[in-house]
Amino acid sequence: MKINTYPQRESWSELIKRPVLRREKLTKLIAEIFKEVEQNGDQALLDFNKKFDGTELKNIKVSEEEIENAESLISNELKEAIQKAKENITKFHTSQITEIEKIETTKGVVCWRENRAIEKIGIYIPGGTAPLFSTVLMLAIPAQLAGCKEIILCTPPDKTGNINPAILYTAKLCGVTKIFKTGGAQAVAAMTLGTESIPNVYKIFGPGNQYVVAAKEFAQNYNVAIDMPAGPSEVLVIADQQAIPEFCAADLLSQAEHGSDSQVIFLSTDEEVFNQTIKETKKQLQELPRSEFTKEALKNSHFILLNTIDEALEFSNLYAPEHLILALEDFEKHIPEIQNAGSVFLGNYSCESAGDYASGTNHTLPTNGFAKNYSGVSLDSFVKKITFQNLSQKGLQNLGKTIEIMAEAEGLFAHKNAVSIRLKQENERV
Amino acid sequence: MKINTYPQRESWSELIKRPVLRREKLTKLIAEIFKEVEQNGDQALLDFNKKFDGTELKNIKVSEEEIENAESLISNELKEAIQKAKENITKFHTSQITEIEKIETTKGVVCWRENRAIEKIGIYIPGGTAPLFSTVLMLAIPAQLAGCKEIILCTPPDKTGNINPAILYTAKLCGVTKIFKTGGAQAVAAMTLGTESIPNVYKIFGPGNQYVVAAKEFAQNYNVAIDMPAGPSEVLVIADQQAIPEFCAADLLSQAEHGSDSQVIFLSTDEEVFNQTIKETKKQLQELPRSEFTKEALKNSHFILLNTIDEALEFSNLYAPEHLILALEDFEKHIPEIQNAGSVFLGNYSCESAGDYASGTNHTLPTNGFAKNYSGVSLDSFVKKITFQNLSQKGLQNLGKTIEIMAEAEGLFAHKNAVSIRLKQENERV
Repeated sequence: MKINTYPQRESWSELIKRPVLRREKLTKLIAEIFKEVEQNGDQALLDFNKKFDGTELKNIKVSEEEIENAESLISNELKEAIQKAKENITKFHTSQITEIEKIETTKGVVCWRENRAIEKIGIYIPGGTAPLFSTVLMLAIPAQLAGCKEIILCTPPDKTGNINPAILYTAKLCGVTKIFKTGGAQAVAAMTLGTESIPNVYKIFGPGNQYVVAAKEFAQNYNVAIDMPAGPSEVLVIADQQAIPEFCAADLLSQAEHGSDSQVIFLSTDEEVFNQTIKETKKQLQELPRSEFTKEALKNSHFILLNTIDEALEFSNLYAPEHLILALEDFEKHIPEIQNAGSVFLGNYSCESAGDYASGTNHTLPTNGFAKNYSGVSLDSFVKKITFQNLSQKGLQNLGKTIEIMAEAEGLFAHKNAVSIRLKQENERV
Repeated sequence: MKINTYPQRESWSELIKRPVLRREKLTKLIAEIFKEVEQNGDQALLDFNKKFDGTELKNIKVSEEEIENAESLISNELKEAIQKAKENITKFHTSQITEIEKIETTKGVVCWRENRAIEKIGIYIPGGTAPLFSTVLMLAIPAQLAGCKEIILCTPPDKTGNINPAILYTAKLCGVTKIFKTGGAQAVAAMTLGTESIPNVYKIFGPGNQYVVAAKEFAQNYNVAIDMPAGPSEVLVIADQQAIPEFCAADLLSQAEHGSDSQVIFLSTDEEVFNQTIKETKKQLQELPRSEFTKEALKNSHFILLNTIDEALEFSNLYAPEHLILALEDFEKHIPEIQNAGSVFLGNYSCESAGDYASGTNHTLPTNGFAKNYSGVSLDSFVKKITFQNLSQKGLQNLGKTIEIMAEAEGLFAHKNAVSIRLKQENERV
């Protein structure tokens, strides 16, 4: 923990710095993996499974039977929780569907936008310590709502060659069309290039380790889109005198447990709340599993005492946190001051976990300061908005001269002629 | 012109291929330019101006006086045309402003999204043969509507050290805050890193040559966002028996004149219209300036006779054109079939030039097949959509168990604890 009381404003630029990512240059390795997958398809993926995960599989594709069985392998309690979360996420993302609105910009000139789903999308779900079925919810639900025809999912199998049943159950529940047992950069390569079993997709979503991140970047060379640039997860909490230190500490720790590179920032204007939160954080830490990760993450965390809430919000806007918690009495008043944040949690009972799992908002959010220029994942991430226009003969009469003058001024005479030839023909007809 | 009558479906994959871009590996050169700008700031830009454009400037920044003077250097006719276009573009992009809609997903759990402008954006406008003031309209208008605080524009000066007055006039009219005389990769570097005069920005928009395109890609290493990946411009026209060959030819040529790498595709189901359009294209070509570009572009163009309109739309969806013109009698009927396109022009009087300049839609559109996974520029391109949530005590009671079960199943106990500690404290208070 790094503790700062009333730091000089000159020191802020130091305080808002992210831990430097030691991202190795993986391009060469990633290029080799892509080449391998391009040449050998499914067999390459099976070989990688053997090499990296120690599993010998016959099929990359998860069978219908495995998917059906998954349902019986998880508790009813968990199934109900997943269904409840699905319901809320569906409600919130459904509200993001926009109606077509036709605008007559000039008499006879009508313009509008229509959404079309990205036809084929891929979801990557990491293996490792936590089976992230919640991320399946966050990506497959809006994909299905948007109308994506092909929603595929790749995730590495465990040592026994299986996928966590909660992931399979959630994937089926949310309309994932095909599931594959493959992880790492090779999974991204497969979704980019296609193999015998795995269809190539137009956009790849989901978190992953440095190899997956590098592979997603590399995939863009093949004209595949990705959800957003990646970085470690982070939270910034702003607390005033009415904040409850136990709650603040729990929120900070819930972020810190994500990984040793997670970042946690606590800003307060109240000395008592500030000191109590530090104390509580240390206390609660003792009681947690995963505490090695958490301790490591806390080393990079900042606890900063400031003079005013306005100052805290200014700091937050400079930092641009992925998650922002306003543990403030009059949070409503401060909403307009928020410029840069991924997702905002208001008041003492809006803990980050709510948004991580079940309130309905999406948990795939911009990290690493990208909240300055990127939005989190939403229904919009799964569609293209196509513009349409229809000019009547009268419409072109009304606007034609304007277009001709502008095209000529830009020296684009064929552009001008496309209008002139229409206006001329019309005159001849009259 | 490549002419195909009723090609076998197996040959389509060949026909939809874009001309291969001989994009040289410019990374090393671009990295050097970024380093130079980082170290020497404005002076580096002045040196580049001297080296590449042969101009010796004292100031990078366009003066207030130059901007004021621009107004007197262009005709009233052009000013009025620009104002009319601005009016339509403003109308259409204003319609893209969304209301805040609060959704109660579970009793006591309220979620919504609010837009916040990207605070600082940069617009690049190429120099060269055409002064693209229309692109200033397309990028500065939505930036201003979105509420971007800093809207800067970089464009290379001409041999005399000046910027085309139509660009200056349009920039002022649309709320550009600062204009700089710098072009190429160094302009992108300056907007990314900042110099003494040029503020760094969070997102860079605008077209450019291969150096600019490579520099925009490189800028992303510095966490700057860009509008979209680049490629040469293109149009696909679908014409039935009622289409007017003169109009179709004019539209094809207006696209071809953009540059020798532009691509032009004509699909028809009517042999008469097909043959006449080929004839007309050759005829009109003779009467155009810029015909060297245009001729070169036409070499890569495809004129394809097909059996049905459905087949033509299927072809178009595979190609995913930047601009799609439906010169069809019953275009309404075919709108739902359109899956992949940047912008669609309906009927005989909706020429592409209308959307390029003045109808109101944006002309910054996905090329090179990116219409499969990217939208064109819109108001959305200049904002982040931030999610908000407020859970009341009762709300967390209603949803808490769901969150706890899911967090535990993912092995994230601190996430669970952030809920448990709140539910527990509440019980104690009761």
